[in-house]
Amino acid sequence: MRYELYYWPSIPGRGEFVRLALEDSGGPYRDVAREGGSSGRGMRAMMRLMGGFEKHPPFAPPFLKAGKEIIAQTANILLYLGARHGLAPKAEAGRLWIHQLQLTIADAVAEAHNTHHPISVALTYEEQKPEAAGAGQAFARGRIPKFLDYFETVLTRGGGHYLGGARVSYADLSLFHLVEGLRFAFPRAMQRAEKKTPRVSALRDRIAARPRIAAYLASPRRLPFDDGIFRHYPALDGDGGKAR
Amino acid sequence: MRYELYYWPSIPGRGEFVRLALEDSGGPYRDVAREGGSSGRGMRAMMRLMGGFEKHPPFAPPFLKAGKEIIAQTANILLYLGARHGLAPKAEAGRLWIHQLQLTIADAVAEAHNTHHPISVALTYEEQKPEAAGAGQAFARGRIPKFLDYFETVLTRGGGHYLGGARVSYADLSLFHLVEGLRFAFPRAMQRAEKKTPRVSALRDRIAARPRIAAYLASPRRLPFDDGIFRHYPALDGDGGKAR
Repeated sequence: MRYELYYWPSIPGRGEFVRLALEDSGGPYRDVAREGGSSGRGMRAMMRLMGGFEKHPPFAPPFLKAGKEIIAQTANILLYLGARHGLAPKAEAGRLWIHQLQLTIADAVAEAHNTHHPISVALTYEEQKPEAAGAGQAFARGRIPKFLDYFETVLTRGGGHYLGGARVSYADLSLFHLVEGLRFAFPRAMQRAEKKTPRVSALRDRIAARPRIAAYLASPRRLPFDDGIFRHYPALDGDGGKAR
Repeated sequence: MRYELYYWPSIPGRGEFVRLALEDSGGPYRDVAREGGSSGRGMRAMMRLMGGFEKHPPFAPPFLKAGKEIIAQTANILLYLGARHGLAPKAEAGRLWIHQLQLTIADAVAEAHNTHHPISVALTYEEQKPEAAGAGQAFARGRIPKFLDYFETVLTRGGGHYLGGARVSYADLSLFHLVEGLRFAFPRAMQRAEKKTPRVSALRDRIAARPRIAAYLASPRRLPFDDGIFRHYPALDGDGGKAR
């Protein structure tokens, strides 16, 4: 089956977590909203599916078309793909554990997004700059270390190369991208935090070196970070200069 | 199996979504952190399990102990319970659809929490009051109608009494609680929004009337809304007086 991914065409965003799983499993897929470029053909196809006329309408991108089914919510799409492409354990306990980790990564992603839009997603960053600086600094100081420490603990307790132990899962691919995104958006805070989480950093490198992921990262299919979830505004990064 | 739920003892919070599924399925369960009352015995048991010494350490409550397994993340716990207690379809497509809806409810819950803590969870509400007023008003004006409209569309398209169609699921129980929480926290905004979403309101009533749920809601096991996720601060509700 040739999957169709639907996501905003100009940012990695949440779609990137799905893209990494699709790339790692090696199957061809369509990235529909990016097709047709400036003609907007792909975007129109996406908006049509979001019109609420489908049996299972999605609230928001990303969503995946798999045959006749439309599956939305990033972690839910990964639950589906993980079971089919060896990116999750077959046994229930392991499957739920990987999903639990993915949902914790999703929480970190939502908090990272919230730093530049603390008041409203209907306003621009520029319209909530002072509040964003406060939110960003609190996230950089308190939440980045807390999330990273947690994943370090998981890797330590599991005793393997991956979050689930000996075998790679979609949560590892997602943690790779979370680290990449945080390094882009909060370079100073991450430099401090990663000193205490060598296993997380090593996992990031291990994922980047997977042949299909390495090929993907070097391809034009990988979008640069820009004004999506992970944004680099120095005012949001760190603790007001103390870390310089 | 007698489940053990672990969650902060004084607020409904995210634990409530799990509690509703446990109550509806009728099995006895322990609500461990609430045991022992002011002695703190239950809380100590919860903190011990969060110490990172377990095979699968949770990042945060709620988590469920089911035999030897510890399962965390609200939606993940519901995925587990739904499969066992008739609160989710057996077929994969239906199962993923219900989970997708649950994750969308979880997004709404996180945004509702963010309104009173837009800058940092490490600060009190009183330390971020002006920012909270802005965040609350944006949520009340823009996001509450958007989420409710979405679930109204789902109920309309599905053509049944429940989100998944003819049969109740854990997502219905969760939508009930989301509506209850939003009515408590944003009474004015909800009064406006629900005028356009009669199916959502009817679903809320249908769930409240389920015998086990009705018995639970009348029991001391149901905690009142207070200073958890759903908080009633008039300044956050509505659009600055225009709706009065």
